[in-house]
Amino acid sequence: MTTAFKTLSEHRSFGGVTAFHEHASRETGLPMRFATFLPPQAASGKVPTLVYLAGLTCTEETFMVKAGAQRLAAELGLALIAPDTSPRGAGVPGEADSWDFGVGAGFYLDATQPGWSNHYRMESWLLKELLPLLGDSMPVDLARLGLFGHSMGGHGALTLALRHPGVFRSLSAFAPICAPMQCPWGTKAFTGYLSTDTASWAHHDASALMAAKATAPYPDGILIDQGLGDKFLAEQLHPEAFEAACTRVGQPLTLRRHPGYDHGYYFIQTFMADHLAHHHRQLAD
Amino acid sequence: MTTAFKTLSEHRSFGGVTAFHEHASRETGLPMRFATFLPPQAASGKVPTLVYLAGLTCTEETFMVKAGAQRLAAELGLALIAPDTSPRGAGVPGEADSWDFGVGAGFYLDATQPGWSNHYRMESWLLKELLPLLGDSMPVDLARLGLFGHSMGGHGALTLALRHPGVFRSLSAFAPICAPMQCPWGTKAFTGYLSTDTASWAHHDASALMAAKATAPYPDGILIDQGLGDKFLAEQLHPEAFEAACTRVGQPLTLRRHPGYDHGYYFIQTFMADHLAHHHRQLAD
Repeated sequence: MTTAFKTLSEHRSFGGVTAFHEHASRETGLPMRFATFLPPQAASGKVPTLVYLAGLTCTEETFMVKAGAQRLAAELGLALIAPDTSPRGAGVPGEADSWDFGVGAGFYLDATQPGWSNHYRMESWLLKELLPLLGDSMPVDLARLGLFGHSMGGHGALTLALRHPGVFRSLSAFAPICAPMQCPWGTKAFTGYLSTDTASWAHHDASALMAAKATAPYPDGILIDQGLGDKFLAEQLHPEAFEAACTRVGQPLTLRRHPGYDHGYYFIQTFMADHLAHHHRQLAD
Repeated sequence: MTTAFKTLSEHRSFGGVTAFHEHASRETGLPMRFATFLPPQAASGKVPTLVYLAGLTCTEETFMVKAGAQRLAAELGLALIAPDTSPRGAGVPGEADSWDFGVGAGFYLDATQPGWSNHYRMESWLLKELLPLLGDSMPVDLARLGLFGHSMGGHGALTLALRHPGVFRSLSAFAPICAPMQCPWGTKAFTGYLSTDTASWAHHDASALMAAKATAPYPDGILIDQGLGDKFLAEQLHPEAFEAACTRVGQPLTLRRHPGYDHGYYFIQTFMADHLAHHHRQLAD
């Protein structure tokens, strides 16, 4: 059984409704927040649904107010779900000391390290609790789910889609962390949440996960947009590692490199329509 | 002569550039911030330009990141300018004590009251300094200027357009304060900036200014959108007063009342495309 949730605010937008909610999560043991957009088409039945995972320091609000996604989602009849980026108020010592680890930086995995493992369970929260809850209580079609995200949330999108075959039918990302085992953000988070035993890390590294597949998990293609003016590109993101892994398993990948674009929401806004169209195409029954 | 400005950051968006700037203002005696969006068409010459005035507590960033305007502006070839909503750092006693007066709440007028009159000169800053500066230094066409805004900035748009005939060729607003002499936000601001002598207030009240016109100042029409789920509508906004004034002088007004929509940027995003199209039509040479 799923638990209920409380709607904190509702805002009519583009003929649909953008809303913010909270529920008492069994998986994290804490109140968790998430945002939803239901397009006008949801008034007459379940609609295909995209889950967007946001980046470091973001909240459930960031995507809804900054990404400019509702306009086209309302046209295409897509619901949007934007979860918060970490538990809040877990009380783990030091959890709010860094902007790239702990609060606002859950990395979309279940922590195994003492202290973190009780509450930092973003993967189980999303997959085992939030999606079933929404499937039961909102007109979102769990058989037509797409997943996308940005930066840390791009890492989340790629890894969760590869770790849970059959759950998400379409996949894309904006400037994702593609090889966290090889970058400072990733090694810091994995050390903290998973320990220094690097054997566990490969299960949460998009490039390693893809390279280990026997066949292409998304035969209709994955879309990734990356700005070449992104100050995090060289040190943190490594799209070429994911590209190489895709080539190795025959996974079709459209990786677009855009001169001048940076890491922020002006970049994301610019290419949002292409991502919604990509998912809409693959979720059309 | 105009003074130079410093560009604080630039973000490629929709083939154009969203940027944030600061300059040392002669009119306010303080550093003033503003944001610009130049569409791709600006690379080959001056383009029609919209000035957007934001509401209480907002900054030069609010419109650029939340309103979703750049997409269509890039298509239509419109530049966008978003000034900050007040001077910052004037040091007037109490200026940061209220969210609806002082810092973040300049009301787009020149204060006459002691203490405020040295720095709170938003009208002169915008009209005599910022627009000439941008006309000289950026590909914005001062002969094809449109003006719009939200809430306090809707008040600013309507009053500045009516007080400066010939400067702005097109005009629209989202949920504007239409009759500030009759609402708590307006009377508080006017008392503080202009004194309790209410004779001066009518010069900054959109409905009073419109009612005093001999002929329609915008014969091609003014567009106003208002949400009917807006919690400030009954007490603060009074669109019916502006509507009556327009009727009196034969000013064509499209005042659209939208059931369920509130006062925020989800409402603004929804109708942004209609406003850009309205201005684009009237600014076509």
